[in-house]
This record gives sequence, structure tokens and C-alpha cells, in this order.
Amino acid sequence: MYQSFDVTARPEQGPPRLAALRAELAQDGLDGFLIPRADAHQGEYVAPRDERLAWLTGFTGSAGFCAALRDVAGVFIDGRYRTQVKQQVAADYTPVPWPDVQLADWLKDQLPKGGRIAYDPWLHATSQIQSLEKQLSPHGFAFVQTDNLVDRIWQDQPAPPMQPAFAHPLEYAGTAAADKIATLAQDLRDLGQSAAVITLPDSIMWLLNIRGSDIAHNPVAHGFAILHAEGRVDLFMAKAKLDGLADHLGAQVTCHDPADFLSHVAALAKPADAKVGADLTTLPQIVADQLGQALVGSGDPCALPKARKCAAEIDGSAAAHLRDGAAVVETLAWLDAQAPGTLSEIDVVKHLEAERAKDPSLRDISFDTISGTGPNGAIMHYRVSEESNATLEDGHLLVLDSGGQYLDGTTDITRTIAIGTPPQEAREAYTRVLQGMIAMSRLIWPKGLAGRDIEAVGRMPLWLAGQDFNHGLGHGVGAFLSVHEGPQRLSRVSHVPLEEGMILSNEPGYYREGAFGIRLENLVVVSPAANQPTSDPERDMLAWRTLTFAPLDRRLIVTEMLSRDERDWLDSYHADVAAKIGPNVTKAAKVWLDAAAAPL
Amino acid sequence: MYQSFDVTARPEQGPPRLAALRAELAQDGLDGFLIPRADAHQGEYVAPRDERLAWLTGFTGSAGFCAALRDVAGVFIDGRYRTQVKQQVAADYTPVPWPDVQLADWLKDQLPKGGRIAYDPWLHATSQIQSLEKQLSPHGFAFVQTDNLVDRIWQDQPAPPMQPAFAHPLEYAGTAAADKIATLAQDLRDLGQSAAVITLPDSIMWLLNIRGSDIAHNPVAHGFAILHAEGRVDLFMAKAKLDGLADHLGAQVTCHDPADFLSHVAALAKPADAKVGADLTTLPQIVADQLGQALVGSGDPCALPKARKCAAEIDGSAAAHLRDGAAVVETLAWLDAQAPGTLSEIDVVKHLEAERAKDPSLRDISFDTISGTGPNGAIMHYRVSEESNATLEDGHLLVLDSGGQYLDGTTDITRTIAIGTPPQEAREAYTRVLQGMIAMSRLIWPKGLAGRDIEAVGRMPLWLAGQDFNHGLGHGVGAFLSVHEGPQRLSRVSHVPLEEGMILSNEPGYYREGAFGIRLENLVVVSPAANQPTSDPERDMLAWRTLTFAPLDRRLIVTEMLSRDERDWLDSYHADVAAKIGPNVTKAAKVWLDAAAAPL
Repeated sequence: MYQSFDVTARPEQGPPRLAALRAELAQDGLDGFLIPRADAHQGEYVAPRDERLAWLTGFTGSAGFCAALRDVAGVFIDGRYRTQVKQQVAADYTPVPWPDVQLADWLKDQLPKGGRIAYDPWLHATSQIQSLEKQLSPHGFAFVQTDNLVDRIWQDQPAPPMQPAFAHPLEYAGTAAADKIATLAQDLRDLGQSAAVITLPDSIMWLLNIRGSDIAHNPVAHGFAILHAEGRVDLFMAKAKLDGLADHLGAQVTCHDPADFLSHVAALAKPADAKVGADLTTLPQIVADQLGQALVGSGDPCALPKARKCAAEIDGSAAAHLRDGAAVVETLAWLDAQAPGTLSEIDVVKHLEAERAKDPSLRDISFDTISGTGPNGAIMHYRVSEESNATLEDGHLLVLDSGGQYLDGTTDITRTIAIGTPPQEAREAYTRVLQGMIAMSRLIWPKGLAGRDIEAVGRMPLWLAGQDFNHGLGHGVGAFLSVHEGPQRLSRVSHVPLEEGMILSNEPGYYREGAFGIRLENLVVVSPAANQPTSDPERDMLAWRTLTFAPLDRRLIVTEMLSRDERDWLDSYHADVAAKIGPNVTKAAKVWLDAAAAPL
Repeated sequence: MYQSFDVTARPEQGPPRLAALRAELAQDGLDGFLIPRADAHQGEYVAPRDERLAWLTGFTGSAGFCAALRDVAGVFIDGRYRTQVKQQVAADYTPVPWPDVQLADWLKDQLPKGGRIAYDPWLHATSQIQSLEKQLSPHGFAFVQTDNLVDRIWQDQPAPPMQPAFAHPLEYAGTAAADKIATLAQDLRDLGQSAAVITLPDSIMWLLNIRGSDIAHNPVAHGFAILHAEGRVDLFMAKAKLDGLADHLGAQVTCHDPADFLSHVAALAKPADAKVGADLTTLPQIVADQLGQALVGSGDPCALPKARKCAAEIDGSAAAHLRDGAAVVETLAWLDAQAPGTLSEIDVVKHLEAERAKDPSLRDISFDTISGTGPNGAIMHYRVSEESNATLEDGHLLVLDSGGQYLDGTTDITRTIAIGTPPQEAREAYTRVLQGMIAMSRLIWPKGLAGRDIEAVGRMPLWLAGQDFNHGLGHGVGAFLSVHEGPQRLSRVSHVPLEEGMILSNEPGYYREGAFGIRLENLVVVSPAANQPTSDPERDMLAWRTLTFAPLDRRLIVTEMLSRDERDWLDSYHADVAAKIGPNVTKAAKVWLDAAAAPL
């Protein structure tokens, strides 16, 4: 299994660890230390050795940080984790609702006379430190760097991940690494920069056409890179990971020991007029310190080119989605054959992963599967454990959100499934969520718009009923890379224009606390809109091409609520599902699929 | 008539005037002078004496500016005026496409070695001058202030407007000026500001509950105001305009000669720690110069309170719309009784204004009526003149965009009307525009969103056909004030959250150059959404209340294209039109209306 169902929080371990940390504070004359849930690459997932927040506090959420002071230790968590944190941390820790309460304000309350707050400069991004210093320095706080105090006291801290990287072949990548390097080097020259520092693993993987296995669910190898304007790359990655990759990397890539990274960065800053680009929102502060005045916050040069998938990447993703769709259909067909009250949430996760694992190109799942039934479905970021594991009962809905990392593409699909006979109210809510998904799927829009400009389209059917949901409509997705990829998003906060080749999720939902949850998710790719007889010739219009194919539960659709256009879209989508997925499933699943995908 | 159809441009007058201006440049040792289409109040309309751009160049558009240098004179115009400018200016003037070409870049091309460029500091906003200085100073340009060089040479320049102001009664204003002043003064104290300088006439009118007649179509009197944090106002307005208003203005308002404005401003800046608020995007540079370090760009304190109409203002606007709707219905009924080929665009304007003028509370039209048939309808900002005046021919559409300034409210309505039997293509386009208007009218959305977040809803029916239009979906509208009022807008550039009481237009369109134009416009006011059985109890949702009532031309609707929801909305809207407007029109118009507003 790529997923575990263990309950990992053991609150009783927190207090002695906190005491040990405080001894270090006292010894170093510090008033506090910050423990983020982060590594030097600011990714969504971290290696076990970087789970310092969970190790210290017991809190296992995917975001948050602890500010451990001499007398109080605040655990800052966002709205998703208000309940979970109370179950996971001991009384020595104080949950702090974030971002309602900002760290700077909390510190001012706890230490009214200021103090020395320490942080590990590898684990905090430059922009974050800039902002904290700005907020704290007027109040007499000194914000100082230190080695990691948790690492000092964590006796059995795991070693850094050391899995082999491997080549991502041109067949899937579409563009040779040498060509990517040449193009981005030209961009640097156009900007008058001598180099760019790249610390995001998925950017390095994309640039060099390699993948790795250092991190769960993310096919990346940890390392750093310097892209030089003359068209070569210094790669700082443990030798053990790069065994046999010298030819693939080619002459324009020089490999170095990661321990030499900072000295190479420092050398970049030497010339008096040096300009070195980086993404300040992810660059570790310690790297910024080496660059000093030479640092230019021009962003990660790979971010947009990586987001704009080429034809080979889109073809690969589409192919992966067909195989993934077959695994989903097998699971849905099996699920339907079981009586209500006989399956658990974990049973479904296991079956689905087993179906996916039949494909030899599957390298991992793309995130821990969300399998939530009844009230658990209303918890947006639910992760089923042996403790929470609920039975699928008659009248419940099941939210099943999952994906796979295949050699040719990354998938992410959510379906909501009827168990027995759900109430009419849930069917109506499901239909509205479906209408939102259809409206966004059908959308055609003029080039130049960002996620913010069109997100309303996918929410409107809910809005008209006085409803909404508290997450974005969609996130970017990589090509056999991160399942959450920037900068493209379908969200109120996204001002980046949508461009051809960007892959995003289209995932409206509806959550009624304590009762049920609904989410539907297809991946879609930005494509040129087909020309119509009515089209204005002077306008460049964009549209979605859908990548995900699996039936939408007809038992939950109130057909009379759909317009003719919505019904036409759904019937046409289901016809595509049957035609594309049908040939790849077992006979029993094919029978189920033909019924599930029949016209409404 | 509140509108003239004269052709005012006389290109041959430009060259001698330019020669006279250049003599002034030479005498003062200047290399150039900027002539904006602006007065000291940065309004959309200016008084005849402030029409310096038109007087000098011949160009009469509502936006643009001239940079008159010793050897070349650039007339900077936006996309709307590319054709018009060529017809209106002599060869001595060079049209410059703006904002494609920026003034700074153009000056660098014309004067590669820099030079002394002069401007009148009353006519340019602070933020504009800041931006120009930033762009020009690195290139060796000196940006200097002067008295107005056009005023020096314009022998018969009209006098400043001097129409009497009048009281806007509490019955329409809803809130006493004393209460507004007290509330805004408290806001200033909360911001730590001693005063705010207000130079926008509609803000001053709103704050003091007065109106004026200095400017065509805008019920404002020109003047300046200083709002003091202790709750009093200095009003700088010619005595002649304020005759008999002393009691209405009350003890908290002190009137001064406008000539004393700058010295009062300078006094505000005297205390070392003085903080004085103003809107930098409209504050004249000469006022900013007096304030120096004391100036805080915190915006016009009246802007948002003015935009959020109170119940009395909404009631007044709704009442004005019913009477205005009757005038429109009379005109539409009359228009329908005339045979194609017998009426001109001007005939329609005259008839409509005469119908409006029957209402004794009409003070003006709210802008020059746009009456464009056939290809003229495709010109978004068309203004009919004796020269352009076209006949309404069989098969044409007529775009009729007009409004009235009534004592209780401002209206703005657009209808597109079939003349004879228009082609199917135009009917389909009309139906899509109507679908956009209906979609926005029906929208319910969560509190906190801005125009940018929801504008897509009104464009989507066009987008789906590969079509769009090149203007915003809607603008703010005042309460017996400006027909274009900020900051609320339904536009891609509007990030101001929509709040209860804001009045906006909902006006999608479609324009096929050389063929036809379509626009439909209702005014709508942001209101709390009605509670529904499905509503999430924890969400604050907003919705539109429609203010405008007049039929939408059923002959142009392709009924089969409408969804059931769209048809239901239209039938219900038409039933409201018949019920609300029917009692206010003549018998003949009532017969016409009942047919026009019958269910589809």
C-alpha cells in the first residue's frame, strides 16, 4: 500500500520533547524557536526527517507551525485543522487559530518586552522572513538564525531520503532538457541575469527530464540547481541518486555534492553587478543571505514553462487518464455490487489502489485517497484512519478523491457515490455540484483571463440556491509531477492568465457539516476553442479539453433540474466514457459501465 | 433640447491656434505643453471653458490629450476614437494610439535629448504627475508647472460656469448632511487625519445634500471642500451659486471664495505632524504641492458611503425609473407605429427627450442619447450628428441608450429595437446578449466578491458562441448624481467588493463592425438575497434588485435558445413591466405595452 491508515499522533510524546527543546533554548539564550511543517524545498509533502512539527507536537496536518517559547508553545493551524489539533496535541501546546491570529501579534502578547526568536534559515522562505522581520523588529524582537534545535534533540531522526532518480524519457517529456535549458538561459540573458537559483524539486525534475522517489506521492528527487545564463546547469544532488544518469543529463549538466551548494551560490554573487534570479516565496533564507544584493525576485524560471504542457505531456496525461479511468470504473462496479453496510471506507481505498496497481506504469498514488462516507464526507481534507473508518450505510454518500502517479501522467479524480438510497436533499445538492462542473467544462473564454475571472461559472448553480463551498474550484496539476502545481489555479486569488496546455482540476463541491459531503472532479487542459460559425474572427478563445473519464452517478442526478444543454453535455460525456474506458475493463465492469454511462 | 446634433469639429481652426501656442512655448523657453481633456475636478464632462483640447485641436472625444511640442503635436486617443480623430484634426496634429504608445516613450522619441515640458498643475492629478515624473526624469526631461498656455491665447474663452446650486431634500437624500459630516469626521479621527480635501463635485454634492447645474448632464456645482476631523466643512464655491442655501447648509458648513482654497489647504499642512487625506488619482497636483508631506493618499472619504445608497435613495431611484420607463414605453410604442424608412436616428432622440421632459422633475438627460441604427449601432460610443444621422431601415436594429436626471434619481437604459424584419443572425446575437443580461440579473453571490469575480456570468452566453464585447458589463450610477460613478463596477479591473445599496448597470452588448450593434441595459441595485429553503444558514448572500422596467423586444428573441429558467425570468420581468409601467402610460401605449410584455 502507498497509504497507511495508522493513527500517528501520540500526544503524550509531546511534553518531554518540548522540555528538551526548552533546555536548548535556555542554553542558547533564546526566547523561542519556530518549527514549520516545511523542508528546504517548501513542498506540500516532506520526508520523514522533516516531519519536525509532528514529531515535536503530535500534530500531523499538512500545514501549520509551532512557536515554542520558554513558557508557552503555540501550534498555529488553519480552519481545516481546528478539531484535529485538539485531538493530537497535549495540554502543553496551545492551538492558535491562524491566519486569524498572526504570529507577530501572538508573540507581542506573549513576550511584551520583545525577545530573541530563532529560526532555521533552511526551512523558511525569504519572503516569509522579510515579512516577519518587518512586523517584529519595531517591537524590539531580534529574529536570529540557528541550526535546527529539533534536530539536536531528535535522537532517532530518519536520514534524508536517498532514492535513485531516473530518466523521464523524451517520449513523455516532449522537449529535450538541453532545449529547455537553452530557452530558459536565453530568458535569463534577456533579463540581464547571470543565473537563477532553483530550489523547487518539481522544477528541477521538469528542467532536466528526470524524476525521483524521495517523497511520498511526488515523483521528485531532492536537490538544488543553478541555471547559468550561458546555458549550463549545476545540479546539487547526492551522487547515490544519480547513478547511471550521466548520459541522460548530458554535457550541459554538472553534478555536485549538495554540501557545495551554498559556496557555489556565494560565488554567483561575487561580481559587483551580479543579478541572480529566484522565487522569493520559496527560496530558503540561507540562500538569499549568500546572494545579498545580487538577488532578484523574478520567480522560478521553470514555473510557467512547466505549467504550459507540450503535446507529448498532454498526450501522456490523456493516456494515463484512460488507464486510471479503467481502475476507477472497476472499483465503482465492484462497489455497486456490495450491499450497504458491508464495506468500510478503508475497504474502498484498498480496492481502488489494488486496481490502480495492476498497471505496471503506476509509480505511486498521487496523494492519500480521501474516502469519506456520511458525515466524514463533509470533512474536506478527510484522511481515513483505523479509528475514523466508517461503514458505508444505506442512504449515505461516499466522497472518493484519489489519483495515480503514472510514468506518463498524474491523475486526480473525485466521484461521489450513492450508497443505497440517499435522501432527495442530497440528490438535489449533488445535481447542483454537477451543474457547476458542467458549466465550467463547457466554458469558452477569451484568452488573457485568469482563474479569478472565470471561477464564478463553476459556483453559480450553488450560489443560486444560497449555497457555496469553502475551497477553490481547481488547482494546477503536473505531468507525472506534483498533483498540486502552480501557478495556474481556478481560484479567487489567482491572477495568472490561463494559457494553452495548462492542466487544472475542475472540482466543485458541497459540504453539510455532520451530514454529507459532495465533490466531483475532472482534470481539464486549456486548449484553443474550436471555431464555430458564430465565432468572432478577431478573438482568440480558449476552452477545456477533459482528460478524466469515469461515470457520474446517475442515481444522484435529479434529471428535471438539468437544462437541455447540461443534459446534452452529460450524455455526450458519458458516451465518451463508455467508448474510451469500456475496452479497458473486465466484462463485468463493462456491463456495469454501459448501464452507468447510458443516456439519462 | 438637452442635446445638440451639431458637428463641432472644424479642423481648419487648429493650425493657427497651434502656431499661437508655440509662440508662447518659445517665449517661455519651453519645449512642450500638455493639454488634457480635463478640469480641476477630473470629471467625465467639462464646462465649455475647459474644452481646451477641442478648441486647440478640433478633437471632441470624451478622453484624450495633446502634447504640443515645438515641431510636432501629438493627439493621444484611445481605441474608440481612432477614426474620429482623423476626421477632426488638421494635418499639423499627429494622432497617437494610446495607451499602446505611452507619453513618456513618445516624448523620448521626439526629444531624444530631453527638454522642458510644461503642464497646468490644476488639470493633472497627483498620481498622474508622479508617474510621468518617474518615467521622464531619468531621460533628462524637466517637468515644469506653468499657468495655462491655452488660456493665454484663447481670446473668447467662456467664463467658468456659475449656475445656482439647490438643496437636495432629505426626502431624497435619506441622511442629513450633518450626520454624514459627523460620520466621516469620525472616520478621519480613526485614521489619525486632521482633515480631508475633496475635489470631486459629486462627492461634495453628496456630502452637503446639494445639487447644481454647472455641467451638462451632471447635477453638480463646481467647488472644493475641506472636511475637518472636528466635524465641520469649509466649502469653496462662488457665492452666486449658494444664494439662499445658508440655512440648508447649516452651521457646520462655512462658505469661502474659491480663490481662498489653496491658502486654506496650505494652512492644513502647517502642523509638523499634520496628516491630510485625499484621493491621489483625482487631486490636482497644485493642491498636493500645498500639502507636501502632510498628504496621505487615503482616497476620497465620500466615495464608498456615496456608492452605498440608503433606503431613501434607492426608493427615489426606483420611483424615477418608473416614470422614466413610461417615457421609454411611450417612445417605443410610437416608434413601432412608424413604417421603416420614415424616421431618422435624431427623430428618435427628440421624441424620447420630449417624452422624458413631460415629467416636471426631469432636470436634464443623464448623457447624450446614443441612437444608432445599422452600422452606426456597432459604434459603441456613437453620438448622432446632423452629418451621421441615418434612417431607420427595414431589417436594421436600433441601439437606443439614454437616461434622465430626475430630482429623485438618475436613470440609464438601453434597448435594442427591431426595425421591420432583421436577419436571423441578428436575432440570435440579440438572444445571446439577452441571456447574458438575464444570467447577471438572476445571480446570487456570496458577500465580499468584486465586479471582477462575477462579470463572467454576463458574458458567458456570448463566449459559448465564440463572441464577446469590448466594454465592461456595468458601471456604478449615482442617486441624482453622476451616471458614471465609482468605485463599484462590473468589470475585469474592479476589485472593490460589491456592497448593499450600490447601483450598477447590467449592460452586455454585441457589435459587428459595419453591420449592426446590440446592447441591453438595466440598472440594478445590490440587495440581500432572499432566504431559500436550500440556503446555507451561515452564508451572507447578495442579489440584484432590478430598477429599470421597459420591454425587451420579443421580435428579436429566438425563443428556442432560451432555457426554462431564462424564459421564466423574462416572463416574470415582463409581467412586472406591464404592472408597474402600464398605469403611467397613455391608452395607446398601454395597448402596445400589454402585447410587448405578454408571456413569450
